[in-house]
Amino acid sequence: MEELKQRICRDGKIRGSNEVLKVDSFLNHQMDVAFLQAIGQEFRRRFEGCQVDRILTIEASGIGIACLAAPSFDNAPVVFAKKNKTKNIAGDVYISTVESFTQGKRPYNIFVSKEFLKAGEKVLLIDDFLANGSALSALIDIVHQAGAEVVGAGIVIEKAFQPGGEIIRGKGVRVEALARIERMSEETGVVFCE
Amino acid sequence: MEELKQRICRDGKIRGSNEVLKVDSFLNHQMDVAFLQAIGQEFRRRFEGCQVDRILTIEASGIGIACLAAPSFDNAPVVFAKKNKTKNIAGDVYISTVESFTQGKRPYNIFVSKEFLKAGEKVLLIDDFLANGSALSALIDIVHQAGAEVVGAGIVIEKAFQPGGEIIRGKGVRVEALARIERMSEETGVVFCE
Repeated sequence: MEELKQRICRDGKIRGSNEVLKVDSFLNHQMDVAFLQAIGQEFRRRFEGCQVDRILTIEASGIGIACLAAPSFDNAPVVFAKKNKTKNIAGDVYISTVESFTQGKRPYNIFVSKEFLKAGEKVLLIDDFLANGSALSALIDIVHQAGAEVVGAGIVIEKAFQPGGEIIRGKGVRVEALARIERMSEETGVVFCE
Repeated sequence: MEELKQRICRDGKIRGSNEVLKVDSFLNHQMDVAFLQAIGQEFRRRFEGCQVDRILTIEASGIGIACLAAPSFDNAPVVFAKKNKTKNIAGDVYISTVESFTQGKRPYNIFVSKEFLKAGEKVLLIDDFLANGSALSALIDIVHQAGAEVVGAGIVIEKAFQPGGEIIRGKGVRVEALARIERMSEETGVVFCE
């Protein structure tokens, strides 16, 4: 998505080499609402003809993106997986664990109420970043626990130099990333794939 | 908002007396996107004629509501306050503390990057619930730290039997709650104000 690439180049802030890309001025702290609507339309275009009964994302960064994409998917209900600290009774929720690749950060659980994910449903996953694929793997696990089907994953930015894309595609899941970054550094800026 | 009251009566789940109201089937776990758009239009109607430069909310439940309200406010940028665990350098962010009234739960910090809140801006606060007012008080504090102005608070559900509404209105902040609950219990259901 050309507009997204330009926006990343203009507003993204790189720290280190192939490490941090901050896009919190338009994507995941401050949200440019019109731009997220355009991103939602692009997801719809990529998944043209696919039935989408439900959009599943994960708190917190995914929520705004998923909610503003939903109108392009006939207002499919959005569900976000919550992170740990739950008082829910076991049995009420599907739980999966997100492995962490950040040093010193521990794995954490995410959960989705069983009420909001049903067998046979076609579920589109949406998230802001795909890097190591750990959050997305946990979401896929939850969809499978429910007996539902993953239509695909709509990702805003894929860090293609990290293994997540390969891992998720290796599971047979279709991944549509609107910007795929081959490499980046403070000196060279962002280099996109292709 | 009549449609909201009906929805709370139909889908809300009450636990205890004047304690927990679960509305996670349409508001804050699964999100009914068309309904949240209608809620956004109602906020716009309530704040008719008010300038809104920015919408500020708090993760995670407020994000979807704020994002789907934004199109009714000329796509005003949405910013969500993040909860603790920050690696941000002090000085880059406005920080405030949310007191907790839940037994055994500790106060926590929320923060907003200074980049995304500017002096003189007119800021609309949006959140799902107003109960003790502690999250909203922290958001108001952050807006004031930035030298910005609170236009008001758009709240989906106010638990009017708790002191938050009085506290926030006592600060001179206009609160527009779309459903105000006078009392509720498993036996009697929800009784709305007026």
